[in-house]
Amino acid sequence: MAFKVGLLGLGTVGTGTVEILRDPAQRHPLLQELVIHKVGVRSLDKARSLNLSADLLTTDLDAIVTDPEIDIVVEVMGGLEPARSLILKALAHKKHVVTANKAAIARFGDEIFTAASEAGVYVLLEAAVGGGIPVIEPLKQSLCANRINTVIGIVNGTTNYILTRMQTEGGDFGEILADAQQLGYAEADPTADVDGLDAADKIAILASLAFSGRIKLSEVYCEGIRQIGAADIAYAEKLGFVIKLLAIAKRESDQQLQVRVHPTLVPKTHPLASVNDVYNAILIEGDPIGQVMFFGRGAGAGPTASAVVSDILNIAAILKVGRGQVTQADGTPLLDPLLACSHQHYCTIAPMSELVTRFYARFLTQDYPGVIGKLGTCFGDHQVSLESVVQAGIRDGLAEIVVVTHDVREGNFRKALDEIQRMTTVANIASVLRVL
Amino acid sequence: MAFKVGLLGLGTVGTGTVEILRDPAQRHPLLQELVIHKVGVRSLDKARSLNLSADLLTTDLDAIVTDPEIDIVVEVMGGLEPARSLILKALAHKKHVVTANKAAIARFGDEIFTAASEAGVYVLLEAAVGGGIPVIEPLKQSLCANRINTVIGIVNGTTNYILTRMQTEGGDFGEILADAQQLGYAEADPTADVDGLDAADKIAILASLAFSGRIKLSEVYCEGIRQIGAADIAYAEKLGFVIKLLAIAKRESDQQLQVRVHPTLVPKTHPLASVNDVYNAILIEGDPIGQVMFFGRGAGAGPTASAVVSDILNIAAILKVGRGQVTQADGTPLLDPLLACSHQHYCTIAPMSELVTRFYARFLTQDYPGVIGKLGTCFGDHQVSLESVVQAGIRDGLAEIVVVTHDVREGNFRKALDEIQRMTTVANIASVLRVL
Ligand SMILES: NC(=O)c1ccc[n+]([C@@H]2O[C@H](COP(=O)([O-])OP(=O)(O)OC[C@H]3O[C@@H](n4cnc5c(N)ncnc54)[C@H](OP(=O)(O)O)[C@@H]3O)[C@@H](O)[C@H]2O)c1
Ligand SMILES: NC(=O)c1ccc[n+]([C@@H]2O[C@H](COP(=O)([O-])OP(=O)(O)OC[C@H]3O[C@@H](n4cnc5c(N)ncnc54)[C@H](OP(=O)(O)O)[C@@H]3O)[C@@H](O)[C@H]2O)c1
Repeated sequence: MAFKVGLLGLGTVGTGTVEILRDPAQRHPLLQELVIHKVGVRSLDKARSLNLSADLLTTDLDAIVTDPEIDIVVEVMGGLEPARSLILKALAHKKHVVTANKAAIARFGDEIFTAASEAGVYVLLEAAVGGGIPVIEPLKQSLCANRINTVIGIVNGTTNYILTRMQTEGGDFGEILADAQQLGYAEADPTADVDGLDAADKIAILASLAFSGRIKLSEVYCEGIRQIGAADIAYAEKLGFVIKLLAIAKRESDQQLQVRVHPTLVPKTHPLASVNDVYNAILIEGDPIGQVMFFGRGAGAGPTASAVVSDILNIAAILKVGRGQVTQADGTPLLDPLLACSHQHYCTIAPMSELVTRFYARFLTQDYPGVIGKLGTCFGDHQVSLESVVQAGIRDGLAEIVVVTHDVREGNFRKALDEIQRMTTVANIASVLRVL
Repeated sequence: MAFKVGLLGLGTVGTGTVEILRDPAQRHPLLQELVIHKVGVRSLDKARSLNLSADLLTTDLDAIVTDPEIDIVVEVMGGLEPARSLILKALAHKKHVVTANKAAIARFGDEIFTAASEAGVYVLLEAAVGGGIPVIEPLKQSLCANRINTVIGIVNGTTNYILTRMQTEGGDFGEILADAQQLGYAEADPTADVDGLDAADKIAILASLAFSGRIKLSEVYCEGIRQIGAADIAYAEKLGFVIKLLAIAKRESDQQLQVRVHPTLVPKTHPLASVNDVYNAILIEGDPIGQVMFFGRGAGAGPTASAVVSDILNIAAILKVGRGQVTQADGTPLLDPLLACSHQHYCTIAPMSELVTRFYARFLTQDYPGVIGKLGTCFGDHQVSLESVVQAGIRDGLAEIVVVTHDVREGNFRKALDEIQRMTTVANIASVLRVL
């Protein structure tokens, strides 16, 4: 049997994908039954590292997603449009889809999965989160007996690289970002990474799978790492923490989830604390499995293509054994309930003001004896119980005060901060971070 | 639809399995379509923590595996016989099988998978390695596009617990084993764990999946942790290592694998070095994914039952969508080429003498100036190049000498040791360990 694959995109991931497809030795024998039928790109003139026969390449992507010969469309072009429209059109033409596009899935997952269900085809997306690290398929299949309670991930390699270097070198965010850009670890426009948007896309996808509901991306709280200073890294270190950009999804109650991305103080003994450089890791806590963690490279041509091609093979295996021969009343093939994303309702996400967490905050204040007392009283007035208040030093003639709270309601903490902000003795709230 | 499950065994894992099956809330909805049809045990009189209706329990296990109503047989009784015969009989009666029995699969995998292929049914075994940690399914599905080069695991919780305590407390093997037995972390008869046999079963299974061939268990080299002394842990620590019982499978060439279990010096910076206590982790290195690691609890009722029930659900999902409706010429359902273990040939395992590795060795010798020179010359004569030789101290009036080699052929190293053993100046080769 031969399964025909149409690729949309031949950039980093597309090239990695073709390289695996053309080199099946010592890989799964099913690879030999895959045929690259067409590859869609923007420009036919671009120099390519791969030696592809010219008649495979086309700029007519519409022709790929409607080609009656193609079984599986692989979307590795990225971006929102035309990626979204092409995926929907491929599904309408009853093609299975494999995609690495977290941005499109996080935003248009509802339309895309509804269209897939109606067409009786699969949309697989292992590459969209954690690069090659298996996490989508484990959530769907290997962990399906569990009640998932928490998913916590380091899912953005660029920010983890920057934070790791800030940690080891003691440098400031701006200079290390500039260096990371030079070295190719950060994009020229770093916004999606450093402002946490990419991580937010990914945790929205993971939360949707873990809690079997749809997630409105606009409800995912998202805070990046631009405001982290060398001082915060150093104080955190002294307190026994490292700072990581965490993407967190948590079942708060039967009705509500927390879904959020923000830099977080992580205890050094926590399994995520030692995940450094561009590595990603996803920690899942479920009942009755307890904690499991998945670790590896979250990006790059090889790891990402590993996930893309594995998804293609999983679909080829289904096609081969004729799964989908059982049909529903309207003739649509019945989809595997573990592999399809058939949930329809939206999860309710709790507002951040209701979050209960520990906080770390750093204040610059006038250097006189009553200040710590004033801060303490203000927090107390708002039911914010403190674990420690330390005058850590003097900076620019101001006293630097570091506060760590016990578990408190974020809403209460914010009200106290509002009041502190207005105190004439407080020059600056230099940083506010949550503690895991 | 309802899928009928027959359980063989209601001990630790069986009880955990029933607990999940009876509590589907917030778990995958497919759970609600599973029905426990029969549960086989040894004794009907035994007090059970579960309140199971009496007509479910039976001591007639044969009747379960031949019951025409049962779709899926779950073998969680353990041991070699009658487990093997019951599994084979279940397969002959075209029942899908889920098992947690690493001992039986490592020994009888060839018979069992051949019988499953002939019957056109699946044998799933996620629980057999790493408890709840997804590793079998990722190897079969999520990583299937890769050429796997290495699998290295900490796959035995008991030995990892003992070694971690030896590391943190500085105690000796014997006393910590006794304490571990008291605390329930080690069995009364600890042989299978501390002599590495359980880890050997597991790496044989992982190697078979990673390298798509069968493995003769008798060819798996296996060395336990009884001989590790507090002195070795302390010297390793000074050299920047921790000692872990590693199970290793490696592609040495197109023709040959290494498959081995032994205590190993692991650099403290290695991802496996910080896997402590009863936790397990499996590190897989593949092309093009690079390194990925899976971490979690490798045993216990909850984690193991998570894997067992997930396997049951995976089979139920297949049954539900009617996969297997495409049949071969003889009418047997065609099995999913990713999920079935259809490889027939045996892998060739290289003899240990051909292994190229670094070694650590500790000698007790007479305390006079020429001894280090004699050792060095002897190693040199056998092409064993040394990284360091240190007289580490005096023990019982003897000089304690610690040697670390560069990468050397194990055969050469052993010949040198034979010669050293016979030197009158050398009282004792106190320990020999490999270095990762
Ligand atoms: N790179 C990674 O490490 C990584 C990791 C995980 C997920 N992903 C995801 O994978 C996807 C692809 O990423 P990438 O890094 O491979 O991107 P890339 O290197 O920029 O490649 C994009 C490819 O798509 C083609 N393309 C883009 N827009 C097109 C259009 N409108 N019409 C026709 N062709 C178009 C480009 O054609 P030309 O070649 O002619 O310009 C190029 O071949 C993205 O969704 C990304 O988020 C990437
Ligand atoms: N425990 C773990 O953490 C763990 C982790 C991974 C894998 N596993 C594997 O899971 C399997 C089960 O382990 P377990 O710890 O659950 O064992 P267990 O607690 O000893 O339970 C064994 C069960 O099987 C029944 N049984 C045993 N031999 C029988 C026979 N000949 N006829 C009828 N019933 C028989 C026993 O019946 P009675 O109740 O009447 O005595 C008991 O219910 C083993 O293969 C083990 O290697 C266990």
